[in-house]
Amino acid sequence: MYDNEEESSTRVAFKVIDGGVTAAKGFRANAVTAGVKNPMAERLDLALIVSDSPAVCDAVFTTNSVKAAPVRLCQQHLKLGSDIRAIIANSGNANACTGLTGIQHAKAMAKGAAEKLGLKMRQIMVGSTGIIGMTMPVERITAKIGSLVEGLTTDGSDKAAAAIMTSDTRPKTFAIEVPCGNGSFRIGGIAKGAGMICPNMATMLCFITTDAKLSASELHKAVRHGVEHSFNRITIDGDTSTNDTVIVISNGQADAPAIKRGSEEAQLFSCALHKVMLELAKMIVGDGERVTKFVEIRVRNARTNDDAKRVAEAVAKSTLVKCSWHGSDPNWGRVIHAVGYSGARIREELVDIYFGGLLAAKGGLVTQTPMAELEKVVKEPRFNVTIDLNLGTANYVVYTSDLSEEYVDFNASEYNAAVHSKRQKGLA
Amino acid sequence: MYDNEEESSTRVAFKVIDGGVTAAKGFRANAVTAGVKNPMAERLDLALIVSDSPAVCDAVFTTNSVKAAPVRLCQQHLKLGSDIRAIIANSGNANACTGLTGIQHAKAMAKGAAEKLGLKMRQIMVGSTGIIGMTMPVERITAKIGSLVEGLTTDGSDKAAAAIMTSDTRPKTFAIEVPCGNGSFRIGGIAKGAGMICPNMATMLCFITTDAKLSASELHKAVRHGVEHSFNRITIDGDTSTNDTVIVISNGQADAPAIKRGSEEAQLFSCALHKVMLELAKMIVGDGERVTKFVEIRVRNARTNDDAKRVAEAVAKSTLVKCSWHGSDPNWGRVIHAVGYSGARIREELVDIYFGGLLAAKGGLVTQTPMAELEKVVKEPRFNVTIDLNLGTANYVVYTSDLSEEYVDFNASEYNAAVHSKRQKGLA
Repeated sequence: MYDNEEESSTRVAFKVIDGGVTAAKGFRANAVTAGVKNPMAERLDLALIVSDSPAVCDAVFTTNSVKAAPVRLCQQHLKLGSDIRAIIANSGNANACTGLTGIQHAKAMAKGAAEKLGLKMRQIMVGSTGIIGMTMPVERITAKIGSLVEGLTTDGSDKAAAAIMTSDTRPKTFAIEVPCGNGSFRIGGIAKGAGMICPNMATMLCFITTDAKLSASELHKAVRHGVEHSFNRITIDGDTSTNDTVIVISNGQADAPAIKRGSEEAQLFSCALHKVMLELAKMIVGDGERVTKFVEIRVRNARTNDDAKRVAEAVAKSTLVKCSWHGSDPNWGRVIHAVGYSGARIREELVDIYFGGLLAAKGGLVTQTPMAELEKVVKEPRFNVTIDLNLGTANYVVYTSDLSEEYVDFNASEYNAAVHSKRQKGLA
Repeated sequence: MYDNEEESSTRVAFKVIDGGVTAAKGFRANAVTAGVKNPMAERLDLALIVSDSPAVCDAVFTTNSVKAAPVRLCQQHLKLGSDIRAIIANSGNANACTGLTGIQHAKAMAKGAAEKLGLKMRQIMVGSTGIIGMTMPVERITAKIGSLVEGLTTDGSDKAAAAIMTSDTRPKTFAIEVPCGNGSFRIGGIAKGAGMICPNMATMLCFITTDAKLSASELHKAVRHGVEHSFNRITIDGDTSTNDTVIVISNGQADAPAIKRGSEEAQLFSCALHKVMLELAKMIVGDGERVTKFVEIRVRNARTNDDAKRVAEAVAKSTLVKCSWHGSDPNWGRVIHAVGYSGARIREELVDIYFGGLLAAKGGLVTQTPMAELEKVVKEPRFNVTIDLNLGTANYVVYTSDLSEEYVDFNASEYNAAVHSKRQKGLA
């Protein structure tokens, strides 16, 4: 009954292209090895993304009351105006729970990048991800900003995507070109994982660039819409991090016409930005820590949007439901049970539950659908679960994953001795 | 700084005694094998608890919108008056998501017990736990009510406790005798696990009897208080079941004086009932599915009770926090992070976190407490975590557990083929 329909808002003509954050005109990127986590390690861990011309910027940050220093600094910079031109980001240390020292370190990163780029400090956004509660080895970072700036290129996106990874198993990058008027614009981004990350915690970082020409307020609208329907629809373990950050920079260098408020082009841009965000969000879920299933949960016909959201999130966050998926068990009992405690208004005798297109429960009761067919759906690495409340007209979609023994093992045992000893020695 | 203090409300002189639900005067119990889950199995699965004299009753049920048939029937019977005299309960089938047929089956259990006991149907409470979404084999139950009633004895509590177990590894029973006036009264109970149970889901059942002499309204007050500070303070996987039920029956047969409204004795009874409930609740957490740690989370000095509760529950329900405990990792970063997203008003720079009595984080920053000492605390099978928000005066306590690979494995893989085939054949 319910197939793999996409959200209608994502219907936009586009071409998938290479290039990530440097796909759009006028952007360069680079990454270097700063040894943030370990001075001996050779992996890339410091990234820079720059617009070569004036730009507008918008961003969305974690709702966690405990906010990392770079998040606080970015919020300040955004308030001072949106002439943001660059993003400097590191992995290996989240610079969270680090107090005033942490703020000074985030400022040092922004200041260092600004000096080498000939910009003001407030034009630089800062992102950090990694261990929390430990002092940033900021001198290792500032020492590398010179070579970081020197190496900026229009094909540096892959290096930047690699540098922001923590426990991600692969870099996340996506870019599209969208015909618009007589020309086109491009939107591209890189991201890193939302699954909470060893050994302490993690973060979701997403940096997007576009050469579309639009005002800061138009960009703001599109970013809010995009985030609400992508990053706010994913959940792996239900935890929101201290560092979650989505930054979008637009420099207006495309040959597409300027996008005016309320125009068809504005709608097109909004849909295109959502598309990029949704693809990156799905990559994050698919690469969640030790995840083996990608599950789309669709709630239909709730009384209100809020009710639809409550049901979707209760099911997506239920440990028991996630365990059942991991075991390829089409367990509608656990699903209806989460529906029941979601806090949404529901009527048990009206609830229908589908795995893929197959009706597992109708009106809150078991159906005659052969178990073997339901199992076939849940055995797939990607499937959807539809919950029809048959009470109203509100719908909601979330993307989530299963919960595996490996997830628990990873998050319980990867607590390594090195971190202890470093903490004790006061080293970063 | 914070030691193993007990909640002040539990300070009451008492003697722990044997006897469970038959410890109090005038109660008898029994259990038989009805073969609810499997006609061939020989385990006890049908229990009966009876007061031989008129009694008052109060009960608290699941807040899940999806309520099992026996829960709905009990709610009706309570509304009709509180002259409840008996509880009949089975394991092996939860009689949940079973529609009108389920209601008829719950009624058949109550009616069967009433007839054999010479009572009215509305004087019987019904409890069920086990698989959901499958028709109850009610005729197997009603066929056994005769022998169930015949075998009632004043030492039948252990059999009843065993009969309501599902994936519990041990029966849960606790009883106390409390000096009161020139005499004493007794309170005793049996319970079964809250951890969601294989193969579909489970439930928390708790049946308590007392011979204290008090009015239905006084009992009601004590039951609300007791449940709020015991069963509502435990969480294993954050899910609330379709069948959760706490029933308390009081028959006034004790030699203690009648307990008057607002008296010191009323306060004593309330504390004593809370003590019994808390012990049973702790047994439930300690015997959660594949649980290896019992953790008491204490939130101190929140702005409001609601804030304190939000923080305690966010920490107790965090998958990542629970994984860290499983790995004996004193990870205050994950704790403060859950504090941050709890929705409570907090100030990061004021948050102190203790493992046992040891300060792990002060003012949101790492302390110099040696990691080895913190680890020693978290390696214990029982420890407490204190979160001092330093903002107000409200406190809250919850009891929870770790999350183990075995929990996931158990809940993912114990989905057995027998259930499938039975569902398909329409058998219970």
